[in-house]
Amino acid sequence: MSVKSGKLVIVGAGKVGNAVLDSVLRLSIIDEIVVINRNRDKALGAVLDASHTTAFEYSTNTSIRVGDYPDCADAQIIVVTAGPSIVKGEYDRSILLKRNIEVMNGVMANITRYTREAILIIISNPLDILTYYFQKKYNYPVDRIFGTGTLLDTARFNKMLGDLCGVDAKNVTGFVLGEHGETSFIPWNTVNIVGVPFQEIGEKFKPSVPIDKEKLLNETKVIGPEIVQLKGYTSAGVSLAACRLIGAIVRNERCVVPVSTVLRGQYGIDDVAMSMPCIIGSDGISRVIELTLDEEGRRDLEVCHAHLRELLESVGA
Amino acid sequence: MSVKSGKLVIVGAGKVGNAVLDSVLRLSIIDEIVVINRNRDKALGAVLDASHTTAFEYSTNTSIRVGDYPDCADAQIIVVTAGPSIVKGEYDRSILLKRNIEVMNGVMANITRYTREAILIIISNPLDILTYYFQKKYNYPVDRIFGTGTLLDTARFNKMLGDLCGVDAKNVTGFVLGEHGETSFIPWNTVNIVGVPFQEIGEKFKPSVPIDKEKLLNETKVIGPEIVQLKGYTSAGVSLAACRLIGAIVRNERCVVPVSTVLRGQYGIDDVAMSMPCIIGSDGISRVIELTLDEEGRRDLEVCHAHLRELLESVGA
Amino acid sequence: MSVKSGKLVIVGAGKVGNAVLDSVLRLSIIDEIVVINRNRDKALGAVLDASHTTAFEYSTNTSIRVGDYPDCADAQIIVVTAGPSIVKGEYDRSILLKRNIEVMNGVMANITRYTREAILIIISNPLDILTYYFQKKYNYPVDRIFGTGTLLDTARFNKMLGDLCGVDAKNVTGFVLGEHGETSFIPWNTVNIVGVPFQEIGEKFKPSVPIDKEKLLNETKVIGPEIVQLKGYTSAGVSLAACRLIGAIVRNERCVVPVSTVLRGQYGIDDVAMSMPCIIGSDGISRVIELTLDEEGRRDLEVCHAHLRELLESVGA
Amino acid sequence: MSVKSGKLVIVGAGKVGNAVLDSVLRLSIIDEIVVINRNRDKALGAVLDASHTTAFEYSTNTSIRVGDYPDCADAQIIVVTAGPSIVKGEYDRSILLKRNIEVMNGVMANITRYTREAILIIISNPLDILTYYFQKKYNYPVDRIFGTGTLLDTARFNKMLGDLCGVDAKNVTGFVLGEHGETSFIPWNTVNIVGVPFQEIGEKFKPSVPIDKEKLLNETKVIGPEIVQLKGYTSAGVSLAACRLIGAIVRNERCVVPVSTVLRGQYGIDDVAMSMPCIIGSDGISRVIELTLDEEGRRDLEVCHAHLRELLESVGA
Repeated sequence: MSVKSGKLVIVGAGKVGNAVLDSVLRLSIIDEIVVINRNRDKALGAVLDASHTTAFEYSTNTSIRVGDYPDCADAQIIVVTAGPSIVKGEYDRSILLKRNIEVMNGVMANITRYTREAILIIISNPLDILTYYFQKKYNYPVDRIFGTGTLLDTARFNKMLGDLCGVDAKNVTGFVLGEHGETSFIPWNTVNIVGVPFQEIGEKFKPSVPIDKEKLLNETKVIGPEIVQLKGYTSAGVSLAACRLIGAIVRNERCVVPVSTVLRGQYGIDDVAMSMPCIIGSDGISRVIELTLDEEGRRDLEVCHAHLRELLESVGA
Repeated sequence: MSVKSGKLVIVGAGKVGNAVLDSVLRLSIIDEIVVINRNRDKALGAVLDASHTTAFEYSTNTSIRVGDYPDCADAQIIVVTAGPSIVKGEYDRSILLKRNIEVMNGVMANITRYTREAILIIISNPLDILTYYFQKKYNYPVDRIFGTGTLLDTARFNKMLGDLCGVDAKNVTGFVLGEHGETSFIPWNTVNIVGVPFQEIGEKFKPSVPIDKEKLLNETKVIGPEIVQLKGYTSAGVSLAACRLIGAIVRNERCVVPVSTVLRGQYGIDDVAMSMPCIIGSDGISRVIELTLDEEGRRDLEVCHAHLRELLESVGA
Repeated sequence: MSVKSGKLVIVGAGKVGNAVLDSVLRLSIIDEIVVINRNRDKALGAVLDASHTTAFEYSTNTSIRVGDYPDCADAQIIVVTAGPSIVKGEYDRSILLKRNIEVMNGVMANITRYTREAILIIISNPLDILTYYFQKKYNYPVDRIFGTGTLLDTARFNKMLGDLCGVDAKNVTGFVLGEHGETSFIPWNTVNIVGVPFQEIGEKFKPSVPIDKEKLLNETKVIGPEIVQLKGYTSAGVSLAACRLIGAIVRNERCVVPVSTVLRGQYGIDDVAMSMPCIIGSDGISRVIELTLDEEGRRDLEVCHAHLRELLESVGA
Repeated sequence: MSVKSGKLVIVGAGKVGNAVLDSVLRLSIIDEIVVINRNRDKALGAVLDASHTTAFEYSTNTSIRVGDYPDCADAQIIVVTAGPSIVKGEYDRSILLKRNIEVMNGVMANITRYTREAILIIISNPLDILTYYFQKKYNYPVDRIFGTGTLLDTARFNKMLGDLCGVDAKNVTGFVLGEHGETSFIPWNTVNIVGVPFQEIGEKFKPSVPIDKEKLLNETKVIGPEIVQLKGYTSAGVSLAACRLIGAIVRNERCVVPVSTVLRGQYGIDDVAMSMPCIIGSDGISRVIELTLDEEGRRDLEVCHAHLRELLESVGA
């Protein structure tokens, strides 16, 4: 009986696709990576650039090659990075909406021709809209399609709060939820550091400057556009968010992380996808955790929900 | 300017010392490991058994050798495993008290002849007594001497609760505190999984069997003696707890983990060492977190405190 | 489609079985580990001691449990450590011969009741005898049963020669081959450091002391017994050798390492198992490399062959 | 005594600088990374994109920030990626010569204002010319300045030959040496796989297609320009080559890898820099290995030397 680890397909060989390829190689947990791109040359360039580095000491063998949609048939994980990404000059993810739905329609039609079993990780933006739209349209198993959503936003929030308090970000419990965009929110009543509730954090950890809730949340929202402004695009952060999910799936971690998922009655909502804390393992999402929100949280959730519905209606979904 | 990583001294080449040596090698973050043992032959055996394996692919070079106390002079970390350990037939850590204080007196006198700058990780039992006794007697900087304490008990608790709830143990926030022994306790009001408070865990995570607080705490206490009964000794768990701390120090993680530390007024106590959540980084403990306890927690703490004082008084400390 | 990594069964929960369990956990490449031991309590002790440590940061989830031979049915890899091991006072591996054949007969009968597909890694001694005897007796696929053989001896040789020359042992090319015991030999005409042949090594690397072929080979032979003498048993080195092989299988590395394999006509020999350089991947051994030997090498090989035949004949094989 | 790992400065925040930053973060062996770029905004974009991802599980804390040349004062390693890189449409590295010498003059003047102790890894092209020119001009310690040179070309060669023979590239011994460019060469008489000399490889490993020396060498030369043609630039491969060197320095590996170094009489040459096998450790290059060349090798070396001298003379060096 041969030991088989996973086969990963990356759709899209742009900046993000390249970054996912390079990052996932460093994880050393995937046996075979296939890159698909409309322009096959760009996929080949990405593959050739990365492919021989497994000869270095401390690098593990991984087969990396250019492929096409039939490769999805036996893939365990498919990361979808295709579609125009946010570029300098236009930061609003909703601008991308129409263009990306069109591009992504082709991608999804191609993928679903070969599989509905692979776990689909959506990175393309606007992420929550695409996740909802395509889960419904292609009737993809709801636990097997999700977006990186606010996972990176959450990492940024944890790191910023941890740094303020002088502790490892991994000791911060607290999520950015909702839209991966302007209406994301933090359910502050659930935030804590090693069991110290948010309102006691100042007293117990004595941060150098007072903790400003609005400022923290706002920074998770503006940093993406800021990076686009400074660097011309984003790639490092989001590719590592994807790797975090790939690792959780391959290692069947059953970790709780926020990803964009189509709600199925949580908080009485079932007509959008947004980021909620989900248990991620080898079968995708095994449970969506419905945190108990306080009034502030419920209000934030409603704003987010209304905004996402509006966007979805604008594309007839 | 040469890049220098840490020098680690392991005092004791018994089962635990051997296990620490073997585990820390796999961390690949220490440049030089020195093993000291009264019977130099046993240290040499441990070193020879491990020493050539760095020739394997994916293993990093580490210098491993037998040494003596002068090696402590420029050590960054010293792990103290010396002294008779718990063996089958006598499970009570307090039985070890007198024997180990004597043995450890020699060890501490030797170490402090060469350094008060290294971070001392005490594994020898009874851990809280030894940590207090020797910090005071040798006036060792209080932030630089601590015991593995309830770190492993906490890992066991997190793993058991996580398994019950079907989530990664790393998503469980909650500590076993106090004595590494019969009076340890869990401050249940601070326990949560991703911000879901303990009392809501049943509803949100739907564990297969009801969560029984007493049973969970009790299992963290009996598992050590049970392993001794079954295997004849314990080594794997505690050595990995030590590695967790070594990693936190070398990587300056500033993570919050429970370790046995001499209290300095926390909860009005300053006359014992017991496990409290501490921020661990390259300078040892940078802060002890004084969790807000409810009445149950305060009562448990007092029982623990009284028990430890009694033990300390029995040795005149 | 769920991502599945391997299932590993460890037969034997003695010193070596425990060390394999603890080491393989650090590899983070196995999903499920099952420990089988005649005395189930010892297996349980090993499992309990290691089992909760996956709650620590930087540790991956792995299911560890006690099991029985039916667990072999879907195992990818089975590591056989059962049987009396070498202990202080009796160093000659051949003394173990009769006792271990008997013990191992039971083990092999039990394993082959459930599988002939798993890859069997034999650690029990005398390794070459057992590997040959059981491959033949149970008609186990020859590419799927092999012993750790001279893999650790080779690591020691590479490390010692590398240290003499001031280079990373991973840059030393050169094997200890033949018996894992007194008649092992080094085919010196194939030894080189980054392409510098053995006879030029002195000139090019300027070792601090002259290189003494006999001393180097001899040290790989005496170090095992020496460790037994000093420490009472050996475990660290051989368990890491087993991990090297497990890693090569799980990652399908196709690396060339010496393992004890039943010869199939190499050098005209087909009636013993001894260590030869083999390509190891997910299907076990995919090729045995028959190095071109000079006269010295051919003579050494013949001595080794004759010695192994003699041992085999003493047990009627 | 605090444990200190290394401080790394990356000069240049273009494609390669970004890729080095992202890759080195995955190594988890550097404590502090500083990015310097003429346009500070681009450095900030790179830093922000990568900076919060250390909050993810399995990622270690690393301080990442934008800095300036005074940061070089206590750096252990400085990676120089500044300067125009090869872009689609102009593949000849020599075209970059004049532009890059000018840009790099400013960089080197700034660095040497603060340190001559850091180990300088040059990635900017034309690499061999710049390494020679600046070592001489700024009198930088010759063992502490070297270029990635043919390290990546060597990895590609090892991987291609390994794949042909069905073995792990790490088992292939053999270097691409000389210029990182059109006159690079392979000293075939030193190439071997686990001690099987090149001329016997066909017989022993039975590759699916005959091994064609010229084709293999040529592919290592054309693949870079091909990637530029396909992807628009190269970054993944060269950044991992830099990481290989950073790892070797931080872990003091003393591994033998080809890097571009100013020759000091090897083969009677002292007036160029070119890639030779060097022992790399925490103090940089501790020895250049002068392989014994056959007639073919000596002829190739002379062609390479003459070509590099010509280029150097064109810039008056």
